[in-house]
Amino acid sequence: MANNFVVTPWEVSGEIDYDLLIEKFGTKRIDEELLDRMADYGELHPMLRRGIVYSHRDLEWILDLYDKGEEFYLYTGRGPSGHTHLGHLMPWMFTKYLQDTFGAKLFFQLTDDEKFLFNDTLSLDDTDEAAFENALDVMALGFDPEKTRFIQDTHYIKTLYPLALKVAKKVTFSTAKAVFGFDNSTNIGSIFYTSIQAAPAFLGSELEGKNIPCLIPCGIDQDPHFRVTRDVANGLGYYKPALIHNKMFPGLLGNDKMSSSQPESTIYTTDSKKQVKKKIGNAFTGGRVSAEEQRKLGGNPDVCAVFKYQFFVFEEDDEAITELYSQCKNGEILCGECKKRLTERIVTFLETHQAKREEARSYIKDLWMRED
Amino acid sequence: MANNFVVTPWEVSGEIDYDLLIEKFGTKRIDEELLDRMADYGELHPMLRRGIVYSHRDLEWILDLYDKGEEFYLYTGRGPSGHTHLGHLMPWMFTKYLQDTFGAKLFFQLTDDEKFLFNDTLSLDDTDEAAFENALDVMALGFDPEKTRFIQDTHYIKTLYPLALKVAKKVTFSTAKAVFGFDNSTNIGSIFYTSIQAAPAFLGSELEGKNIPCLIPCGIDQDPHFRVTRDVANGLGYYKPALIHNKMFPGLLGNDKMSSSQPESTIYTTDSKKQVKKKIGNAFTGGRVSAEEQRKLGGNPDVCAVFKYQFFVFEEDDEAITELYSQCKNGEILCGECKKRLTERIVTFLETHQAKREEARSYIKDLWMRED
Repeated sequence: MANNFVVTPWEVSGEIDYDLLIEKFGTKRIDEELLDRMADYGELHPMLRRGIVYSHRDLEWILDLYDKGEEFYLYTGRGPSGHTHLGHLMPWMFTKYLQDTFGAKLFFQLTDDEKFLFNDTLSLDDTDEAAFENALDVMALGFDPEKTRFIQDTHYIKTLYPLALKVAKKVTFSTAKAVFGFDNSTNIGSIFYTSIQAAPAFLGSELEGKNIPCLIPCGIDQDPHFRVTRDVANGLGYYKPALIHNKMFPGLLGNDKMSSSQPESTIYTTDSKKQVKKKIGNAFTGGRVSAEEQRKLGGNPDVCAVFKYQFFVFEEDDEAITELYSQCKNGEILCGECKKRLTERIVTFLETHQAKREEARSYIKDLWMRED
Repeated sequence: MANNFVVTPWEVSGEIDYDLLIEKFGTKRIDEELLDRMADYGELHPMLRRGIVYSHRDLEWILDLYDKGEEFYLYTGRGPSGHTHLGHLMPWMFTKYLQDTFGAKLFFQLTDDEKFLFNDTLSLDDTDEAAFENALDVMALGFDPEKTRFIQDTHYIKTLYPLALKVAKKVTFSTAKAVFGFDNSTNIGSIFYTSIQAAPAFLGSELEGKNIPCLIPCGIDQDPHFRVTRDVANGLGYYKPALIHNKMFPGLLGNDKMSSSQPESTIYTTDSKKQVKKKIGNAFTGGRVSAEEQRKLGGNPDVCAVFKYQFFVFEEDDEAITELYSQCKNGEILCGECKKRLTERIVTFLETHQAKREEARSYIKDLWMRED
């Protein structure tokens, strides 16, 4: 059972055992001591307090350097394949907390090449358009335009390519096969691609002409890429990038990861109030067969998508979330009420978000990394 | 015995059976009928008359289009790993004949990425420098600067990459393995690389916004790349490139291909008169153990590197080459005299070549394909 799940950069399925992932991937848990240390830099983000951001590589190392005055930069990204959904926003919200807390620059990679290579139905025109639209969602979250730059792979390839070549020269098919599960039917672009995702981890150093530490906030599903990146880093004369991993944002229908392949399970940032209401209305909950029975026996918030959404993102107040949890358990609140509250939260959030993403249209292209 | 040789884009060894290669690769022989047809466009190049350029794919097709007024462009290239040697010049001389005869534009690809990926000891700085130096040798041969453009992969990657991605998406590891002999230890850059070599075959069409036929003159060892390119071409909406193949230029020590990995077997375009003299002096010939015996029994020009050099490149006069052949066979000329004649030819050639390659320094960079 515990092993009955798959987590790769391109597939997340089954019931994820996040503890086992730490073991399998060889990452480290963010423990109480590290949380205490993080709290010294500013109020802990709810995702840290709640164990949603839960795993890391070399986070202490990068904080040690930071304490000594050596600033790091952030690097995260998005495979632009379509509309942004709430599951995409979650790690970006956390990334914004890191930018605010550490005053860090951010490289945000838009991997249009990846999405083209790994998706039969997408053209490069499709991914180009999605890259632009997705970037609006990033900036709508309030990143500092002075400290944030977008790297769209096909646009910035002249700079990325030599870095990628250096990585690629050190990675055998054997390694790629073992790490990503490739086989003989994998296309040769997909096999090469991890080199391109590695490049921004060294870009800061390359542009500055000296080694700059890099911290990558990302879903734990992206760790395989950066395991490869880290393995070759020292050999190329760079620091290994540090990582900080979040769990997957759940789908509305009870699945472990929100995914565009199930639109009814997914709330897009461009959804209307009506669409949100309908989707939340159909969400999977931990409710009982009847209101009567639920009042008597209580609900199960642990499996409830509606509760998880509050827990992951929308209810930042720890007391309020604890109260909601026990209200549900004790049958003091029914699913209808809970769905109504979440719908209101999301609708309010999206109203602001949609306005801000429209504002971003006027300046977004100025934030693209460009070549001579 | 016949199978005891290897011909891939990265390895040529053993005694090459060029007829068997046509069978193995599935190309077509340039027969008398096709030679007659080629003669209609201008005097046949000696390499065609002598069967040095001996194989093709779709050459009739591209001539049919040309006859109907549809011009084609030429595409060839060089992996810039060090000094240019005579073995490199040979197919370029033939390419120049094609440019002159058909008034064709030429894309000359400098595959610095390839050489970096496939050669443990080369850095990207090394290949960058070699690309520049090699281009001088190309232009020294007299290509039309108005009709010749260099594509250095890492410099022009923004244009090449989307084309390469489209190719890569259609080529599985299985295919790459079968065509190039890759295995699990091959690096993932090398696996991807063929997509980059494919791109210029479609670049002419891409830049013009309509399909333009492309003819690739190259060594038969490069055919595997373009077999892959041709396999995906129609699916991407392009013409398949046509090919015209030459045999390998022999090494001085009797080996089937001149190679920089054996410097003593190789005459570089930058060699001094003294170096040429020494290298030709040490060349492998078909001579006998003594002058006396050679006068009596005759030599063997068929295995003689010195004769081959005259045959491949330096003696363009068919009567003169036939005469030299029989003089050798009949013991009427000894190796010393033959070496002296070849040395003179090469020294004279290199004097002019070296002057012209210096002239090219002033304008060569203007011929580089550039991006916005």
